[in-house]
Amino acid sequence: MDADYGIPRQLSDLQKLRSQYQPELPPCLQGTTVRVELRDATTAADPFGEHTIKRFFPHTYGQPLAHFLRATAKVPDAQIITEHPAIRVGVVFCGRQSPGGHNVIWGLHDALKVHNRKNILLGFLGGSEGLFAQKTLEITDDVLATYKNQGGYDMLGRTKDQIRTTEQVNAAMDACKTLKLDGLVIIGGVTSNTDAAHLAEKFAETKCPTKVVGVPVTLNGDLKNQFVEANVGFDTICKVNSQLISNVCTDALSAEKYYYFIRLMGRKASHVALECTLQSHPNMVILGEEVAASKLTIFDITQQICDAVQARAEHDKNHGVILLPEGLIESIPEVYALLQEIHGLLRQGVSSDKISSQLSPWASALFDFLPHFIRKQLLLHPESDDSAQLSQIETEKLIAHLVETEMNKRLKEGTYKGKKFNAICHFFGYQARGSLPSKFDCDYAYVLGHICYHILAARLNGYMATVTNLKNPANKWHCGAAPISAMMTVKRYGRGAGQASIGVPALHPATVDLKGRSYELLSQNATKFLLDDVYRNPGPLQFDGPGADAKAVTLCVEDQDYMGRIKKLQEYLDKVRAIVKPGCSQDVLKAALSAMASVTDILSVISSPSSASTPF
Amino acid sequence: MDADYGIPRQLSDLQKLRSQYQPELPPCLQGTTVRVELRDATTAADPFGEHTIKRFFPHTYGQPLAHFLRATAKVPDAQIITEHPAIRVGVVFCGRQSPGGHNVIWGLHDALKVHNRKNILLGFLGGSEGLFAQKTLEITDDVLATYKNQGGYDMLGRTKDQIRTTEQVNAAMDACKTLKLDGLVIIGGVTSNTDAAHLAEKFAETKCPTKVVGVPVTLNGDLKNQFVEANVGFDTICKVNSQLISNVCTDALSAEKYYYFIRLMGRKASHVALECTLQSHPNMVILGEEVAASKLTIFDITQQICDAVQARAEHDKNHGVILLPEGLIESIPEVYALLQEIHGLLRQGVSSDKISSQLSPWASALFDFLPHFIRKQLLLHPESDDSAQLSQIETEKLIAHLVETEMNKRLKEGTYKGKKFNAICHFFGYQARGSLPSKFDCDYAYVLGHICYHILAARLNGYMATVTNLKNPANKWHCGAAPISAMMTVKRYGRGAGQASIGVPALHPATVDLKGRSYELLSQNATKFLLDDVYRNPGPLQFDGPGADAKAVTLCVEDQDYMGRIKKLQEYLDKVRAIVKPGCSQDVLKAALSAMASVTDILSVISSPSSASTPF
Repeated sequence: MDADYGIPRQLSDLQKLRSQYQPELPPCLQGTTVRVELRDATTAADPFGEHTIKRFFPHTYGQPLAHFLRATAKVPDAQIITEHPAIRVGVVFCGRQSPGGHNVIWGLHDALKVHNRKNILLGFLGGSEGLFAQKTLEITDDVLATYKNQGGYDMLGRTKDQIRTTEQVNAAMDACKTLKLDGLVIIGGVTSNTDAAHLAEKFAETKCPTKVVGVPVTLNGDLKNQFVEANVGFDTICKVNSQLISNVCTDALSAEKYYYFIRLMGRKASHVALECTLQSHPNMVILGEEVAASKLTIFDITQQICDAVQARAEHDKNHGVILLPEGLIESIPEVYALLQEIHGLLRQGVSSDKISSQLSPWASALFDFLPHFIRKQLLLHPESDDSAQLSQIETEKLIAHLVETEMNKRLKEGTYKGKKFNAICHFFGYQARGSLPSKFDCDYAYVLGHICYHILAARLNGYMATVTNLKNPANKWHCGAAPISAMMTVKRYGRGAGQASIGVPALHPATVDLKGRSYELLSQNATKFLLDDVYRNPGPLQFDGPGADAKAVTLCVEDQDYMGRIKKLQEYLDKVRAIVKPGCSQDVLKAALSAMASVTDILSVISSPSSASTPF
Repeated sequence: MDADYGIPRQLSDLQKLRSQYQPELPPCLQGTTVRVELRDATTAADPFGEHTIKRFFPHTYGQPLAHFLRATAKVPDAQIITEHPAIRVGVVFCGRQSPGGHNVIWGLHDALKVHNRKNILLGFLGGSEGLFAQKTLEITDDVLATYKNQGGYDMLGRTKDQIRTTEQVNAAMDACKTLKLDGLVIIGGVTSNTDAAHLAEKFAETKCPTKVVGVPVTLNGDLKNQFVEANVGFDTICKVNSQLISNVCTDALSAEKYYYFIRLMGRKASHVALECTLQSHPNMVILGEEVAASKLTIFDITQQICDAVQARAEHDKNHGVILLPEGLIESIPEVYALLQEIHGLLRQGVSSDKISSQLSPWASALFDFLPHFIRKQLLLHPESDDSAQLSQIETEKLIAHLVETEMNKRLKEGTYKGKKFNAICHFFGYQARGSLPSKFDCDYAYVLGHICYHILAARLNGYMATVTNLKNPANKWHCGAAPISAMMTVKRYGRGAGQASIGVPALHPATVDLKGRSYELLSQNATKFLLDDVYRNPGPLQFDGPGADAKAVTLCVEDQDYMGRIKKLQEYLDKVRAIVKPGCSQDVLKAALSAMASVTDILSVISSPSSASTPF
């Protein structure tokens, strides 16, 4: 770990300008009188898992949703927190860095200082390892100065970032106690927020006074559920990647001789690939969720792409751009099965050079069929979340190789009459992760930071900061908090040996919804994208003028705002109660009974476990 | 070839805004009365080659420099061209697409139309192949509308792009004759401009009335000489790459566990790598020119990097970013020798799987030592300019592999005590080539387009359009034209068999000048870059505000403006002549003689062939 954390960085002119940008706060968070409304207890969206979740989270499951409202909001039960004793808060970056992370800390710091100048914010140096080792840096205006609206996690750094083993949990608790922390804010994705929930439960159980808060920050965009619409960093990553994809599309159209295969960082789910497709209109995208749903084999995928290449050649087009999500390889059933066998053997301690001889005949046949470079990558040890080392497996090269082989065969056989097939492969990820965050991510992260303070001021534990209605301008955003345990699901059908997570409730990466509006938009345009080269170039990330305020397409087409709707429903219920008070007419009462009976009947049917779809 | 050329493209909001941007013309090109000054005959900078160049270019060598001046400029010999008969001009994109290329055509079109509405501009579809096949598209305001200030070459497309064989030259001549072209404008880099010069000579020899003009457009930035300060596209490429490199630097600093090896597109010379280093301050860059000058072996380079990694580890830094130019592999003496042997065998028709057995013992030993993936890439057929397929050879992976092996060895031996060495490799090129051009490239290309018209209006043949004093604002730019043959050199020491270019004058890629100011700037900062992580993030390409008007560092630190100085010298000579007219006093005459004798003595000594350094 080096001593460079938190030191002022030299900023370029553009960075300086950005460091002076002040994100807008929604009206409810302005000033120091924020009203908190705690209403109905939450329930897990996973009806099968509820029992298990309850068992794992006896202290923190079923807590109410929290809404943060402006002081003047007319909500009878909401309270204004007027006492703001000085508190001490720790904050830690966990997992892959994501643009905008610094702004969560900035927002939290501003909220702390505006409510009590004596509040203290400590940043843990070097991620979870810094937490365990109690290495801290006090966050001040001076420290923040050159990190406001800047990318990366370099103000504090991060490490491997897992808070899961008993040792790790105890070390975290020791740190919180020794440092007398009233709150611990964990900035990260699905894994880190799962850890945050378990830590919160542990703290509640052992009466450790530190409250734990999670913040949804992950470029993958896969921490999505009824309460969480978007993740900090996703917008920037998709904009930077879409710029590069568009540049490659222009290149393809100019040279007319290459097929570009571009793999996009984003872990198992295909959110980044889908969003980038909707932004830049490449010829084709293979979503992992489609492959899994249709159980496509690697040969099916190859044939599909070859057919596309052939169709384009018939229109005299010998170039193209094809996107692949990082996690595609694990969505292909037979490759996934092979990976599970390999990982099982690795866990048994079989050394990687001996594995191929111990595979089942079926897996062995597939393994031998694959090109040499990919075999080596498949033999890498799995990551801490049991997935393969997706960033290291060059799926784009594998697919390009298979397509080339098949196209050469078709050329020889005379079924394909186009030009010789040429592929160029790319992996876009690392070069986007450190980008200056987009305006959206700057704003969103800063607001989430403020919300973290209000969660702690309300003494809530095991919550995640949430903002909904994000597709609208910041002055219409709804700010709240939801218990992390309410977002969890329980996996029942584990594959392969040694999967420690079987049966343990966790946040699982949300996959692309194949029935959702974003996917529908893609389906409607797929043929046009494939054949007509309607490439769209959003251009480089701008901070002013056209495009600067553009939001993710998937965020805008999906009609979310779950938290807003929950509030709206509560208003209806309150109204019914107000109208049908004892003393109202018999007719009104009868009408109310009849209508409510019908409503409850419908809802019981819809929400019975037998009709609910499995959440994964 | 498809039918999509020149059709209006759907533009994003940012692209639309850019399409409305109007580049500024320097005062000398404004209006319709441009003065042309033709003065002293040019000479080749290569004193050894002059004789050969003269022999190859009897009609076009030694033509005077042309300066374009404003109508009011007080230059006695300059003439205003007042006759503007309607002319027909063809324009063709040659070679790798480079951002800004479209603006050359736009500028040329505007200049043509402002001087005579009846002027016709024809674009050749699909590069040189379109020229040979006489496939044209008339360039109109409508065609240009969605391509102004946009990247790529997709308005017209391009192909392999060579105009060199007798067949090709004749096809080009036929096209010019059939289409009754008064001028042919060739947009490209060193190879294409060499072809342009030979074509011009051929046309002059055969009395084909078409005048040929070259335009320096290449992202490599290697078409540099006394007359040419910069190439269209280089600025954009370096800005886009520097953004990505900076993002990777931020990433490295956040995760603190990776070394990133980034190879940069830019062919043999290391201009792009040098410029990107000066813009983004990565820890290290290995310039091909340094390697060639110091005759570093691949082991030397490995040791150098390993020593750097070790030095950083002693400062608790286990991350870093290292840049490599695309052409590095050919700068390493022993690998170059191996490549020459391989190419020689390939030219003899030896199939690639048999080559390893036919190598000399020495080359064979090196070949066997190299990892499998790189061997395959070294066996690829060379490009038309006899270089290896640089974009396909993953030098970054080779170096990372060798460094990893060595670091593991040092770790085992205990000489290295840092964390396990982890490398991630990148190749940045294709994703920058199609970018929206920077303001500088938009302006520069548009002005060059205008100059092409004035070259043709002055009936000059075999010239390249030039703008000097580029580091200053556009209203101070000096516009001119220089005979391409004056920029040529002759290679004497060819290596390997079958090098068709031995003895034929050509533009050769300019290498990074290890005695120049840019390199000096790098040397002064190298240690700081290596150890202090003074990463600089210029941010994404902007079109307004801070950074939008930034120019390449290498352009700004070098004090060029050769054309401006040539003009200044002529002014001195004119002044001496004016002062020392017959009738002046004996004393004045004596003083003049004494001073001039001294000047001529000094210049003779400096410019004698024996003291001149070999230009390559």
